[in-house]
Amino acid sequence: MSALKNDRFLRALLRQPVDRTPVWMMRQAGRYLPEYKATRAQAGDFMSLCKNHELACEVTLQPLERFPLDAAILFSDILTIPDAMGLGLYFETGEGPRFHKVVRTEKDVADLPIANTEADLGYVLKAVSTIRHELNGRVPLIGFSGSPWTLATYMVEGESSKDFRHVKAMMYDTPEIMHELLNKLALSVIDYLNGQIKAGAQAVQIFDTWGGSLSDVAYREFSLKYMQQIVDGLIREFDGQKIPVILFTKGGGQWLEAMADIGADALGIDWTTDMGNARSRVGDRVALQGNMDPSVLYASPKTIRAEVKRILDSYGSGSGQVFNLGHGIHQFVDPENARAFVEAVVELSADYHL
Amino acid sequence: MSALKNDRFLRALLRQPVDRTPVWMMRQAGRYLPEYKATRAQAGDFMSLCKNHELACEVTLQPLERFPLDAAILFSDILTIPDAMGLGLYFETGEGPRFHKVVRTEKDVADLPIANTEADLGYVLKAVSTIRHELNGRVPLIGFSGSPWTLATYMVEGESSKDFRHVKAMMYDTPEIMHELLNKLALSVIDYLNGQIKAGAQAVQIFDTWGGSLSDVAYREFSLKYMQQIVDGLIREFDGQKIPVILFTKGGGQWLEAMADIGADALGIDWTTDMGNARSRVGDRVALQGNMDPSVLYASPKTIRAEVKRILDSYGSGSGQVFNLGHGIHQFVDPENARAFVEAVVELSADYHL
Repeated sequence: MSALKNDRFLRALLRQPVDRTPVWMMRQAGRYLPEYKATRAQAGDFMSLCKNHELACEVTLQPLERFPLDAAILFSDILTIPDAMGLGLYFETGEGPRFHKVVRTEKDVADLPIANTEADLGYVLKAVSTIRHELNGRVPLIGFSGSPWTLATYMVEGESSKDFRHVKAMMYDTPEIMHELLNKLALSVIDYLNGQIKAGAQAVQIFDTWGGSLSDVAYREFSLKYMQQIVDGLIREFDGQKIPVILFTKGGGQWLEAMADIGADALGIDWTTDMGNARSRVGDRVALQGNMDPSVLYASPKTIRAEVKRILDSYGSGSGQVFNLGHGIHQFVDPENARAFVEAVVELSADYHL
Repeated sequence: MSALKNDRFLRALLRQPVDRTPVWMMRQAGRYLPEYKATRAQAGDFMSLCKNHELACEVTLQPLERFPLDAAILFSDILTIPDAMGLGLYFETGEGPRFHKVVRTEKDVADLPIANTEADLGYVLKAVSTIRHELNGRVPLIGFSGSPWTLATYMVEGESSKDFRHVKAMMYDTPEIMHELLNKLALSVIDYLNGQIKAGAQAVQIFDTWGGSLSDVAYREFSLKYMQQIVDGLIREFDGQKIPVILFTKGGGQWLEAMADIGADALGIDWTTDMGNARSRVGDRVALQGNMDPSVLYASPKTIRAEVKRILDSYGSGSGQVFNLGHGIHQFVDPENARAFVEAVVELSADYHL
């Protein structure tokens, strides 16, 4: 593989000195880009795009052609794992994800296999190795997975949910069944992320999109615990390079201290948490990634720049920060505003690393 | 007016001793009750139910007939104020609220009147006085309003929103226009809540449903500041009785210290915050209301009881707690599970007040 020409993202995750703050955007390959929509139309539906390694590579690289980003992230979906477990993922036009089968009973959980990455998720590994090759050392490649709790919400509900009716009834009434499901998911995620690392991912992020729907007690028992199991099972060094792990619980601002204790290298934080306050709470245990409100990108470039400055000031000087949005970029954002965001970080952040 | 026969809700809000922890449920008059659906069908659409003081009174009292609740809450909608400001509130079947007019420009905001409670919200005051009369001192009546920020999100977007595209662009790019809108809303809310208090409301709650969508800095500037203005402008004693004020920001667990400082008597907290932790953070400045995950009501009565016990343990002994859900009760909950919740608080909480 080619030597990495830009390693400031990996260095910041490991809290090593950098020349400026690295920046990338969650969902940076996505519907706000006309070129993404063109490739997506060519692929047909969303899963066909994920399963075609050449097109998945193409959309992964698109935002790098436009903006001076410091990392690429595998183009895929968090629900590939439940799909590989046999639930039959599909997307209705204009709707969220759905499954043909749902997991509701003790037998449903008992019958569920642990996902076999080699056999059933080879298309993801192929996308990873293709992207890594095509990146040619330009920036590092991030692999990712959903968290066990987040995956379980979709598997039990069968679709996106507002009140998590079925999954929470299972969790509250039959915690032992929920733990069995979450353990199977954690083992699946470990195999999946280690597969991505061996295929070329240079850092991995665990997306705990729905951990913030849990009570304080339930978060620790049903989400954080299984992310710890994953972190414990991951390959942390590959091919002579450390593989940093980022943990992102949306709405998890109240639990940063606990999250900082499970052995990840960095925490993603959303915009409801003040960056400087987060830094003082986690100390030197982890790096921090985030956290601009994605809706700031609906404002003017001047406002975007001021908000970037405010967050840089809030974190303060020194390494350990990766600039990002606090959640995925929205589909109606003008790409020129995304540019203003990335360029503001590039232009303003060197002063914090003197 | 009749003497109040059950004042433990008001006493707990003022952190005075009580015999057991008082309990009510946000949205306790609602679609999970078949008798509510029957009255609603009789009224026609949702706003017709709100505007008919006799039917609004009927649905307000329905949950009290079923469960040993310690408070009644006015049946109404938070969007009555924007409607009174001329925006034309309506509800499409199966959809959220909509407005015929939206507020997007400097002129839109400048042209907006402050809501005149007497002239345009008389139907709410009439519902309050009718309910208070019909309650006949059984339990106290809670009046309520949306927070300025929460009302502004609907007025600028014109409907419910996921990304708050327009209202956040206004807030970030033209904060002075947003401040003008929020000030008009705060003045409207003060007049509205004072009208409710004079009509018979014995406590008031400010629902900041969307404050949790803001960054830490923006929350303080665009939501909390205007709730402070409201708290400063409210009648705090009426007819010889203190009128407690409850502040509820959904997703506001990170800001409890700041919320406790604006002069409200109590804070509502959602289930993501641990009750005992919240108590230690706010000290004796405010009482706390909450905070069971509403989705626990999808579990069994036995589980519901255990969760009530856990939260009572977490708060610990002494007054200053009002038991509630962390958000409104979901429409698909079995009323018998709501009963299990209320009865568990009634039966288990006396031990914490010896």
